Formats: sequence, structure tokens, C-alpha cells
Amino acid sequence: MAGPQVGTPANMRELNQRLVLDRLRAGGEATRPRIAADTGLSKPTVSQALLDLEQCGLVRATGHSPAGPGRAAVVYRVAPDAGHVVGVDIGRRSIRVAVADLDGTVVARLDEPNRCRSGTALVRTVGDAVAGTVSSAGLRPADIVATVVGTPGIPDARTGTVHRAPNLPGWERPGLLHSLRDRLCASGSDLVVENDANLCAVGEHALGAALGVDVLVCLTVGTGIGMGVLVGGRLFRGAHGAAGEIADLPAGARAGGARAHRPGPMEDVASAHAIVARARVLGLATVRSAREVFALASAGDEVALRVVAEEAAHLAHVVAAVTAVLDPGLIVLGGGIGSNAALLAEPMRAALAATTPFAPEIVGGRLGAEAVLAGAVTTALGTARELVFERRAPRRTAAQA
Amino acid sequence: MAGPQVGTPANMRELNQRLVLDRLRAGGEATRPRIAADTGLSKPTVSQALLDLEQCGLVRATGHSPAGPGRAAVVYRVAPDAGHVVGVDIGRRSIRVAVADLDGTVVARLDEPNRCRSGTALVRTVGDAVAGTVSSAGLRPADIVATVVGTPGIPDARTGTVHRAPNLPGWERPGLLHSLRDRLCASGSDLVVENDANLCAVGEHALGAALGVDVLVCLTVGTGIGMGVLVGGRLFRGAHGAAGEIADLPAGARAGGARAHRPGPMEDVASAHAIVARARVLGLATVRSAREVFALASAGDEVALRVVAEEAAHLAHVVAAVTAVLDPGLIVLGGGIGSNAALLAEPMRAALAATTPFAPEIVGGRLGAEAVLAGAVTTALGTARELVFERRAPRRTAAQA
Repeated sequence: MAGPQVGTPANMRELNQRLVLDRLRAGGEATRPRIAADTGLSKPTVSQALLDLEQCGLVRATGHSPAGPGRAAVVYRVAPDAGHVVGVDIGRRSIRVAVADLDGTVVARLDEPNRCRSGTALVRTVGDAVAGTVSSAGLRPADIVATVVGTPGIPDARTGTVHRAPNLPGWERPGLLHSLRDRLCASGSDLVVENDANLCAVGEHALGAALGVDVLVCLTVGTGIGMGVLVGGRLFRGAHGAAGEIADLPAGARAGGARAHRPGPMEDVASAHAIVARARVLGLATVRSAREVFALASAGDEVALRVVAEEAAHLAHVVAAVTAVLDPGLIVLGGGIGSNAALLAEPMRAALAATTPFAPEIVGGRLGAEAVLAGAVTTALGTARELVFERRAPRRTAAQA
Repeated sequence: MAGPQVGTPANMRELNQRLVLDRLRAGGEATRPRIAADTGLSKPTVSQALLDLEQCGLVRATGHSPAGPGRAAVVYRVAPDAGHVVGVDIGRRSIRVAVADLDGTVVARLDEPNRCRSGTALVRTVGDAVAGTVSSAGLRPADIVATVVGTPGIPDARTGTVHRAPNLPGWERPGLLHSLRDRLCASGSDLVVENDANLCAVGEHALGAALGVDVLVCLTVGTGIGMGVLVGGRLFRGAHGAAGEIADLPAGARAGGARAHRPGPMEDVASAHAIVARARVLGLATVRSAREVFALASAGDEVALRVVAEEAAHLAHVVAAVTAVLDPGLIVLGGGIGSNAALLAEPMRAALAATTPFAPEIVGGRLGAEAVLAGAVTTALGTARELVFERRAPRRTAAQA
């Protein structure tokens, strides 16, 4: 049993640095006495930790506090440029890239259409997009500490393969993520590839409609249908990374009997193309997108309203199953269709009230098309803040009590 | 921000005691040098911690190690009688009580039929059963550090009310759990009332079919239908304590249209009385219990086999929904019907293989009717081990670095 080595002097110094750094990150800039009061550490201990953190570039003095009697106290804050992160959102139609500093401030941003017809082309396009965005921020590749990429499907880091992403041509090729790693992380950036609905949930939790919500489900409906689950504020992936793969959920009596396995039964009846197909069957022969159907419904078109009501019933069926299993406090609707919360949420609530004793609140996402990217940057920041501390903080010595 | 007070001497001494105690709990009895090697603490630090822990009765010397050169080293172990716990399983038909020491060894055990017709009677009966079992172990009420009670339904600690437990007459009375607390905890024992399927999952995870499984679902089918979910090895309750309330899950096309709300649609078609009713409809006019139906199926009766196949299909539908949402690594079948895993698991697997890409393993529980009680004792031990340390360990002083 290799237990933690508690209470040795070298570890204490590092623990104190970490405590001071965490205080500055969570509570914003502060003076030495304020940090001492907030952490319970003595002022000399705080001074030593601030000195250590300043010397390795993790903290800097920003000025003097005007308040209080006697000498003005120095105000300290986290150094935002001790490292940078990259977030990427790979979608069927577009590729989005953001570069942010350790404060989470986006310093460069790129949107470009995704016209790639192969996995190789998409890896190259994403690589070029990231390199260009990093460069446009005046940064070198080595300045990037962590990169997080959102993708449809189930990325398997072990085999480097994305499963169940049929909407991206060639993207399921075995080992493709190894190529992506080679292209993005030649300079040593940490890379995580994550399901896009998961990152949507992280984004809405960190910056959007689900601030402070502990058990959260983000239901994304667009080209496909997906779900991100946060438990205790943290992403829950399941045993095979397939938690929230509700495309496979049985669609219930409305599905009209057995269906081919892929796309999943619920994806068959509830994603964007199903809405378009259903609208055409019901007489809206010229509609070409789900967006058009929702626009018609907003304008009062009765056929479009019927299609939207059916979609709400499908999504209520999903939410009923999710609620029976997870009992989430909040459902955030994300993705292209999900953003039509104004039309969908009310009939979903009505359907749920009839079947579900503890129906969760249903709201639209606040971050819109930026949600996945926001989740990617948020996730990358979590990694980067840890890595810059490990890389820059004074090395611990092997002293033992 | 009231941060933890890291690295002060009083806390270090307590941390070291805790480290030594955790080592003895997790790794069993050990000598001083062994503890030092396993924890990374120095031998003098270990000696001081052992002295502190012995003085407050949490650790004792059990003899001398015969191995190794030189003087035989003293062997230390956790004192199992520094406190005791009570576990209770309140079922529709029976009440089970166990008293265990801090090692988890059951020192007294009681089973009695539940014939109560009111909540008041059940509180009194449970109280008498616990008092009698504690007494039969030669213990006083004050020796009980923690009590955990398993019940059907959703216990709400805040209001002291159990929701959705229609099978126990009078048990949903508002504030009833306050009466239970008064009856069971007059001597200061900590009390937790927990859903029985949740405790079944905890029990099978700690001692049964799900040792070491990180994401676990325990599906219990008997008088009702329920589910316990462990995430990261810990119980997951959801936002309102209603996670796993799959009685409400839409039962799919087989349910035959809309149903009354309570019992839930899945409970309507899949619990024990539904099996009996279905068997009678199909011609087994004299069967009186689901147990009989399973026994007939085991003997090859074709009608009974058809009923079992239908039950397997219902449960596969539940597992498909659970898997789409949670992606568990393992499904444990518990409760009366669930224990017929030999008949149910194979058709469930076949049904899942057709619809679910990452189908979880399905196994029968190993603890049978003892699972809920084992989960109650396990949960109580977790609380009690913490409480006896807090109550007995030398008080920390307010020293600061």
C-alpha cells in the first residue's frame, strides 16, 4: 500500500503553494492578509508561498490595495499567461477553434466550414486550423499546455478510435486519434478527445444555463441525438464511455415496431432529418431543414406545430427514461433543434407531468452553438492549471518526517 | 472561503493517526515497521500514532510477529469493539436486523415476519426488534454508533417522510421517520434511512457479485421493482433521491397503451404480481406466487417458460434504457424474482445484443435475501468508523503554523 506521504516539510510547502493558488483562482485577486484569513495559513506561510509562486511565474503582483489603515497592501493574482489552452469543436458542418489563457479569456477564435470527405483530410484541416489560430494569438505551439477536442461519437483513447460517428466520413477509422495527436501535440500539449454532448454539458454547467447544478443532463438534438451527464458537477462517462448514448434508446410505441440498429431507434425518430422527413410526409413538401420547420411552427403553421408536438413527445420519452434512471435536477436542451426550447419545453413538461413524479426542470441552453467549444476550453483549463503547477512549481525534495 | 487548515502540527498528528488507522483497516493487522513502510511515515511517527490510537481504544496489540530476525515485533490491529452498528431491512413480508462490530462481524441477528397494518405499529415493531437484537448481543443502546435502515420507496430525511412505498400500510405518513428516529436513536446513534434497492447495490458491491465494479446497477424485482446505482463505487441518489425509480419507466409497446400512474408502468408489467396474473391468464390457473412460476419454468413447463420469457423481455427493456443513459459495467439481478438469474439472464442478454452496442454483463446477486441487510451494515460501518475516530481520537488543539 503506497499511501500519500502526509505532513513532510517538502509536501507542506507544496500544499501551501497549492492552497494559495487555489484561493486566488477561486476567489480572485487578494492581499496577503486576505489570503491568510481565507486559507487559515499564517501570514509568513502565505508570504513564502507567494514568493515561490511568483518566482515560477504562476502568480504576480498587480498593484496596491487602497483600502485599510497603514501601508497599502500588495494585491496578488494568478498570472493568466503562465500557459494557454486550445478548445476544438468538430461538427458535421463546421470546425470551431478557440485559444484561451489560464483565466479562460479567449485570445483567438476561428470558425470554418467542414467540407472534409475523409478522416485524413479532417485531421489535416483541424491541425491547420489549430496551428493558424495559435499563431494568430501570437503564441508558439509550445505555449499550449492542454488541448481538448469535441467530436460526435465515442472516442476510445486506448485504441485511438472514435466509435459511432457515422456522420463524419472516415472518422471511425481505427487509430485515427493517434494521427490527430501527432498533428496537434507535437510540442507536448496534453490532448483529450471527448464526446461533444459531454462537452456541451460541461460548457453549460461552467458558463451557461446550469451554473451550480449538481446532477445535470444536457440533451443535444441535431444531425444526431446525444446526451451529456454530469454527476456531482463532474462528467460521467459510464463503463465504456457510452453513458448518454441515447440514440440507442428504444423509441417506444411511436417508433412503429422494430428498426435497423444504426442509427439507433431514438435517433431514427427524433433527430433533424427525421423532423424534415415527417414534415414532408405531413404535407410540407418543400422544407429542407429542421430550422425551417421550427420557424414555420413559430409563425403558427399547423402542420409544423404538429411535427414539433411529435418531436416534443419523443424527447419527453427520452427525458422520462433519463429521469427514472438518474433523477437529474435539470435538463438543458442543446444542439440545433434543442435550442428551440421555447417551442419544445412546455409540451415536454406537460407530457412528463403525466408520467414522472419528480420531473426535472427543462431549459434551453444559453451558449447556443458555442456550448461544445466552451466545454472544451473549460475542460482544457482544468488540466492546464494542474499541469502548469506541476511543471513550474519548485520541485519537492525527498525529505521525510 | 474557509479552506482546510493544512500542515499545522495538531492536524498532522491527527492525519498521521488517521493514516495508520486506515492502513490497519484496509490491510489488516501489521507490525510497526510494516505500517511505516506502507504509509511512508517514519517509525517514530507511527509509534506515536499507535500510542494515541491505543489510548483511545481504537487500536490494540494482538501479539508478536514470529517472523524476521531479532526481537519479535508487536502486531497491531483495529479494535473491533470500539463501537457497533445496526442494520435493518424493512420488507413487505419480513423485518431483518443485524448487529455488527467495527470489523463487520455480525454478532446478533433477528428475522421476524412483518404483520404490521400501520406505520405506528411498524415503527414500534422495528424498535422492539432492534432493542432485542442489541440486547441479545450483550450490548447497551449507547454502544450503537450508527444505524442504517433499508425501506422500499424514497425516504426524505428533511421531512422525515417516505414517498412511494404503497406496499407498506401507513408507511408514507408525513414525519413518520422522525418517530422511527426517536424510537431507534434515543442513545445518540446516527440514523440513515435508505432505499432498499440502493442498499442491495451497496451490499453486492461490498460483499457479493459486484466486488470492485465501478459503475454498477442493481435491478431488484419482487413485490415492486427498483434499482440501485453506484457511480465510482458510491451510491448515486439523483437530485430528489429518485434515481433508479424505474417503476415509472415507460414499459414500451408491450405495456398495451396508457396506464394509471401508480404503480408505475414498468412495475405494472414486471413485478411479482404481474407474473402471477400473466401466468393465470395463460392457463396456469392455480399458481399463487412468482416463485411457483419460476419453479414450473425450471421444470420445463411451456406456459411458465413463456411467462419467464416475457419477464426477461420487460427487464431487457429496462436494462436497454439504463444502459443508454448510464452505460454500467455490470447489472446485478436482486430481489425475489431477480434471484432467478439462471432463467432470466440468458434471454435478457439475447434481447440486449440486438439493440445495445455496449451491453453490460448480467449476473445474479450472490447475497440473496441478505443483500439489503449487508448494504445497511456496510453503510453503517462507513459512518461508524468515522464517528468513533472523531469521538475517541485526542482532540486537536487550535495551533497554527
